[in-house]
Amino acid sequence: MPPTTPALAEKLGGLQSSVIRDLLKLTARAEVISLAGGLPDADLMPRERIAEAAENALAGSACLQYTESPGWGPLRAVLAERESARLGRPVGSDEVFVTHGSQQALSLLAEVLLDPGALVVVEDPAYVGALQVFRAAGARIIALPMDSEGMRVDLLAELLASGERPTAVHTVSNFHNPGGVTMSSARRRALAELADAHGFWVIEDDPYGELWFDRPAPEPVATYSRNVIRLSSSSKIIAPTLRTGWMIAPPNVFRGVELLKQGADLCGSALTQQIAADLLSDESWLAAHIATVCNAYGTRAKALVHALRDRFGDRLVCTDATGGMFVWADFTDGTDAESLLPHALDAGVAYVPGYAFAATTGHQNSMRLCFTNSDPATLAVAVDRLAGAVDGQSTQL
Amino acid sequence: MPPTTPALAEKLGGLQSSVIRDLLKLTARAEVISLAGGLPDADLMPRERIAEAAENALAGSACLQYTESPGWGPLRAVLAERESARLGRPVGSDEVFVTHGSQQALSLLAEVLLDPGALVVVEDPAYVGALQVFRAAGARIIALPMDSEGMRVDLLAELLASGERPTAVHTVSNFHNPGGVTMSSARRRALAELADAHGFWVIEDDPYGELWFDRPAPEPVATYSRNVIRLSSSSKIIAPTLRTGWMIAPPNVFRGVELLKQGADLCGSALTQQIAADLLSDESWLAAHIATVCNAYGTRAKALVHALRDRFGDRLVCTDATGGMFVWADFTDGTDAESLLPHALDAGVAYVPGYAFAATTGHQNSMRLCFTNSDPATLAVAVDRLAGAVDGQSTQL
Repeated sequence: MPPTTPALAEKLGGLQSSVIRDLLKLTARAEVISLAGGLPDADLMPRERIAEAAENALAGSACLQYTESPGWGPLRAVLAERESARLGRPVGSDEVFVTHGSQQALSLLAEVLLDPGALVVVEDPAYVGALQVFRAAGARIIALPMDSEGMRVDLLAELLASGERPTAVHTVSNFHNPGGVTMSSARRRALAELADAHGFWVIEDDPYGELWFDRPAPEPVATYSRNVIRLSSSSKIIAPTLRTGWMIAPPNVFRGVELLKQGADLCGSALTQQIAADLLSDESWLAAHIATVCNAYGTRAKALVHALRDRFGDRLVCTDATGGMFVWADFTDGTDAESLLPHALDAGVAYVPGYAFAATTGHQNSMRLCFTNSDPATLAVAVDRLAGAVDGQSTQL
Repeated sequence: MPPTTPALAEKLGGLQSSVIRDLLKLTARAEVISLAGGLPDADLMPRERIAEAAENALAGSACLQYTESPGWGPLRAVLAERESARLGRPVGSDEVFVTHGSQQALSLLAEVLLDPGALVVVEDPAYVGALQVFRAAGARIIALPMDSEGMRVDLLAELLASGERPTAVHTVSNFHNPGGVTMSSARRRALAELADAHGFWVIEDDPYGELWFDRPAPEPVATYSRNVIRLSSSSKIIAPTLRTGWMIAPPNVFRGVELLKQGADLCGSALTQQIAADLLSDESWLAAHIATVCNAYGTRAKALVHALRDRFGDRLVCTDATGGMFVWADFTDGTDAESLLPHALDAGVAYVPGYAFAATTGHQNSMRLCFTNSDPATLAVAVDRLAGAVDGQSTQL
């Protein structure tokens, strides 16, 4: 076998496999209640409606062939219509680029936009899939903390005032993964104004925006500036198997992504794109379906938050879980979430320790908890087990 | 809008969109017989069998969720069994990595294996999807000519003797796209020996190997050396919509590709992978289906070659079309295929001029002709129109 090349050696060393994905392998034991994964609930996915759409698509042979790199035309038209409603301006099909999940949009954007050494600003804690592609592109990463209103845009302004010139700012604007918070309207406007003033791209990564429990998410950052590249996905509202994400981007970015998509994988699947177009254009059905998912997730989220607050009191603070799939919780009593994890697994509960989402270090006292795959009673048991693990660990000390 | 970044400007300038894909847009006019595309015939794709498999998969919810980055386990097992038979050694599932078409395998391999400036050897004319990703990786590319036995491996030996040290050698070993030829067994053995002796990777790109008309393709290059990374695909034998390609690779390469796949798009579609597994494991059905496709393509190929030789005589030489999807034809009378093209389009026939497949320049007198989408009578008309265009152009001169 040829020696491992320098490129390969560097990439094997430099790239970290997602800690979360590796952890998932350990939590597959049936007796462990896993709040670690980041998966939507397969039981809530519209299996029969997908089967119907597959049958419709496969009644003709148009779904069998290669399709266009930016996506199947009618799907792009459906997405343009939905995004027009969302953004309050007419979005053309020619602004819509369909990707293999929104992760592919992130990956292609990193390649198109970033020179090695370019500065990218992310949120802290950050979406690990974004960290992964920005690191692979050789970007310099600065992570800005969040509070209950999302990214501390005031700190971004300070950074800009100090002379830093980011090429892009990445934000999960709604129901943050992993942070659980939503950026306020005021922050969105401020972020957009900074982008216009300083000429950087905002990558608004929004897979969770439609999964709101109490009130709809604020207007997208993309409403306020044309310097925003907006990403979304059908994975959380329909099913990951469609691998249908999309990007709304201006022509020069669109063209760069199109060239790279041809080299990356030629095109997406006409079959899954036709299925996605069928479901996404079936407005009244889709609205009812999303309401069902939101209702189920909302009930679970509130059960988890209630149990955490009830069981831990002021030893832990957590987000309110107003949408999305995750609660972020910080131990205030010094409990180290990383060293707690093996005890928690022994007690039969799994989570992702906060350090997995740090751009560099930190979040040692934090956990990401996913509530999508357990009913309220199970979530209460999970929190009991977690409390038992914390108590047991304290006793051992 | 932010100014186009240096990275974007360079990529927009440096990356060329596939000439072929752009040409396809021009040849969509109904009156043009297009031999330009590289598409398998959708009418021969097993639509009903795919629909049946989709229905089976969608009877359960396991096909809806995210799947593993290297592919759905049972599909990898099916592919391992097929490749074991092909390679004459036991191939483990853990050697099989499922990609979003084999183009994604090429793209991820380029990223894993190649440092900027690394030398990659390709065939001349070359598969443009390979040229695209090797260029994007910043590789230095040397293209070696082919003859009726495929790549001139003697010239590779000379290159090595001169001190050149390629990181990888890319070959479309069977029924070359665009060259139409198949590498002989002797050349395969010689190539494998050079790889073992000099420690470079052979990327054996084999999407067409099962589409043979007269006799099966020779044993894969991967039979002769473990320095071969073997790629194949279901796109040409089943349907492109499944976006199911695969790579057989040693552990260090596998691991590098796995890390990059997570960042690139997380994973493939569990639905299309389950459909692929269903069809690829249905051995007797699959054998009969592939035989039907080979029979149809073989008839078309021979009709095209017959018409070309009959109509042009010694003004043109072309490959024998013993498999795959393409005939490569060279004008011997000095006709320039690039400047002929507009006249050919006016006459109602399209092809891809040879220069589109050149690593640098050349092939001005050559054409790639795809025979998969026209019946024999239509192919004869296409050749008549081509001859008319050549004659018309000569008259004008």
